[in-house]
Amino acid sequence: MKGLLTTLSVALGDRQYPIQIGQGLLGQPEVWRPLIRSRQVAIVTNTTVGPLYLETLQSALAHLGLVPLVIELPDGEVYKTFSSLQVIFDRLMEARMERKATLIALGGGVVGDMAGFAAACYQRGMPFIQVPTTLLSQVDSSVGGKTAVNHPLGKNMIGAFYQPQAVVIDMNVLSTLPDRELSAGLAEVIKMGCILDADFFAWLEGHMDALRARDPQALSMAIERSCALKALVVAQDERESTGRRALLNFGHTFGHAIEAGLGFGVWLHGEAVGCGMVMASHLSQQLGLLSDAQRNRVIRLVERAGLPTRGPDWSTETYLEWMAHDKKAEAGEIRYIVLNGLGSARLSTASRAQVGLALEQHRGEWV
Amino acid sequence: MKGLLTTLSVALGDRQYPIQIGQGLLGQPEVWRPLIRSRQVAIVTNTTVGPLYLETLQSALAHLGLVPLVIELPDGEVYKTFSSLQVIFDRLMEARMERKATLIALGGGVVGDMAGFAAACYQRGMPFIQVPTTLLSQVDSSVGGKTAVNHPLGKNMIGAFYQPQAVVIDMNVLSTLPDRELSAGLAEVIKMGCILDADFFAWLEGHMDALRARDPQALSMAIERSCALKALVVAQDERESTGRRALLNFGHTFGHAIEAGLGFGVWLHGEAVGCGMVMASHLSQQLGLLSDAQRNRVIRLVERAGLPTRGPDWSTETYLEWMAHDKKAEAGEIRYIVLNGLGSARLSTASRAQVGLALEQHRGEWV
Repeated sequence: MKGLLTTLSVALGDRQYPIQIGQGLLGQPEVWRPLIRSRQVAIVTNTTVGPLYLETLQSALAHLGLVPLVIELPDGEVYKTFSSLQVIFDRLMEARMERKATLIALGGGVVGDMAGFAAACYQRGMPFIQVPTTLLSQVDSSVGGKTAVNHPLGKNMIGAFYQPQAVVIDMNVLSTLPDRELSAGLAEVIKMGCILDADFFAWLEGHMDALRARDPQALSMAIERSCALKALVVAQDERESTGRRALLNFGHTFGHAIEAGLGFGVWLHGEAVGCGMVMASHLSQQLGLLSDAQRNRVIRLVERAGLPTRGPDWSTETYLEWMAHDKKAEAGEIRYIVLNGLGSARLSTASRAQVGLALEQHRGEWV
Repeated sequence: MKGLLTTLSVALGDRQYPIQIGQGLLGQPEVWRPLIRSRQVAIVTNTTVGPLYLETLQSALAHLGLVPLVIELPDGEVYKTFSSLQVIFDRLMEARMERKATLIALGGGVVGDMAGFAAACYQRGMPFIQVPTTLLSQVDSSVGGKTAVNHPLGKNMIGAFYQPQAVVIDMNVLSTLPDRELSAGLAEVIKMGCILDADFFAWLEGHMDALRARDPQALSMAIERSCALKALVVAQDERESTGRRALLNFGHTFGHAIEAGLGFGVWLHGEAVGCGMVMASHLSQQLGLLSDAQRNRVIRLVERAGLPTRGPDWSTETYLEWMAHDKKAEAGEIRYIVLNGLGSARLSTASRAQVGLALEQHRGEWV
């Protein structure tokens, strides 16, 4: 296959699936032929990505005799709702899509999460394929089967664990990605280094400028490494039952609070995670698990990725209030993912005072 | 445990769960103690069942120090919708239910299907317990993990496979069940005999009067046998992937068409299934798979259960139109579950003419 750089595999027994990473995959019929086993196909995309890449995908599918139903949703986290989900169901039902039809998610994390959840529920589960078009969704959200929509009181609160048939990552689509979105994606890449791989973290420190300049070699390395790490964790703990997978939420407890508190979509998810990692690193240092120097390396790398290191100027109580909605909360107690040295993470509780101190220096305007 | 008659088991490996059948189970703290492992509990019920049995259940839970959140929905298939689902999510979120909280479905099939689907999606899955209060839900829908809501264009179109932690069947609640609902439940009992167990079918012929008179011994035998047969099929084919489980939909292809065409809730689900079994038996006979005598035994038993044997007076095209939405349809072709002699079933296609003939004698007013 032309332009195919790597195929990784998510080892989930009889639900094992491939992650294909390459350049120009979207428009190649040979990419799709083995992946689509149905005569009916639907594509869920949004009004930003659709005009850019829908035609390429559609013409590849046309070579296979497939005329997809296209469901184009408005762009943005604010539309990751129950109502959008209903639009998808209505369109699938009106077009009489069968439960063996294939649903393709063409877009970023919002499209992937929402289309994946729709696929999980439509007739109790239809095949679906992730085609992530942002760096963030390529390195993180498209892999692992977490699907969801937001509830007004909390992010990703309504969803399912539902694995795709395949993930197709075409790096060429990154050429049209706005800088702000590129930075947001780098947040999840940095996260992988922080919690799982100190060498990768160091590599990122050496290649952050190349990544922001969209050097293809640097980007492909970052994507491949992030996907491989993610696939490993998912294979170990698909349903977040052992606690292993929960570690992937490093930066997300603070991050989700920021997103929910500001209203979804004001900050990009990756921006909130970037700032959340800074706060969580500070907390890790408060807890004696991270040295000042290590904490500063995290802050510096987040900063160099073009991400915020200061959150909204709220009281500690406001932060705690929003964090109490977190899915990891248990018996009312918030559980934080903290770094235990660079490249390692664990769950921890923390006192109000410790959280307050961690927030202290990272609260205020982000310009 | 007082009044416990039988405990069956649904053999699904590490997701194995018990079905407890007995008299007066609802109010016994000892029943609930081993089943509820959370400090938070929510009960989903409806405005008919709630006033009858909520207090009994609540007082049993109070003995365990549990004060449940009660979510009472309006009664009826017409409320088995996306909007009701949203009400459940809103209430769970407002009460800050954690993902380890336990959701108890106290009601018939509608409550069980909807609460089960809510449990499947809330924070990507929370523990739930089925407490079926109608004969239909006791013998069929509470066992096996099929959960769903209806879409305006088709029944149970949006849902999930999600197994409960346990099913608690208290036969005492049948004392308040209206006769019409009792008959509806008998439809699914008859179905089990038709597709899986000729001896059970013959037993039902001998005990139909006792069942309609609510003889406790006859009822407990019918419930136990139906649950055991259902549990066996579910263990063989949990996700309806081999075709084995699909056979449980005998009578449902015609039945769903009637329900959807008339508008959900005009006929009870069991009534539609009863009539659907008559139509499907007629089709089986058209296809040379069932003798006239066998077909007449099915019709007679459905009739004796107090169920309709004639459907709405629609054209064959109208029936086919509604049936084309069925989840079992493949490549646009409707697949019927037909009897291959009494006690055995299989999937089959059928011509328009054959379906027309099968409908011929079972179309018209049901008085």
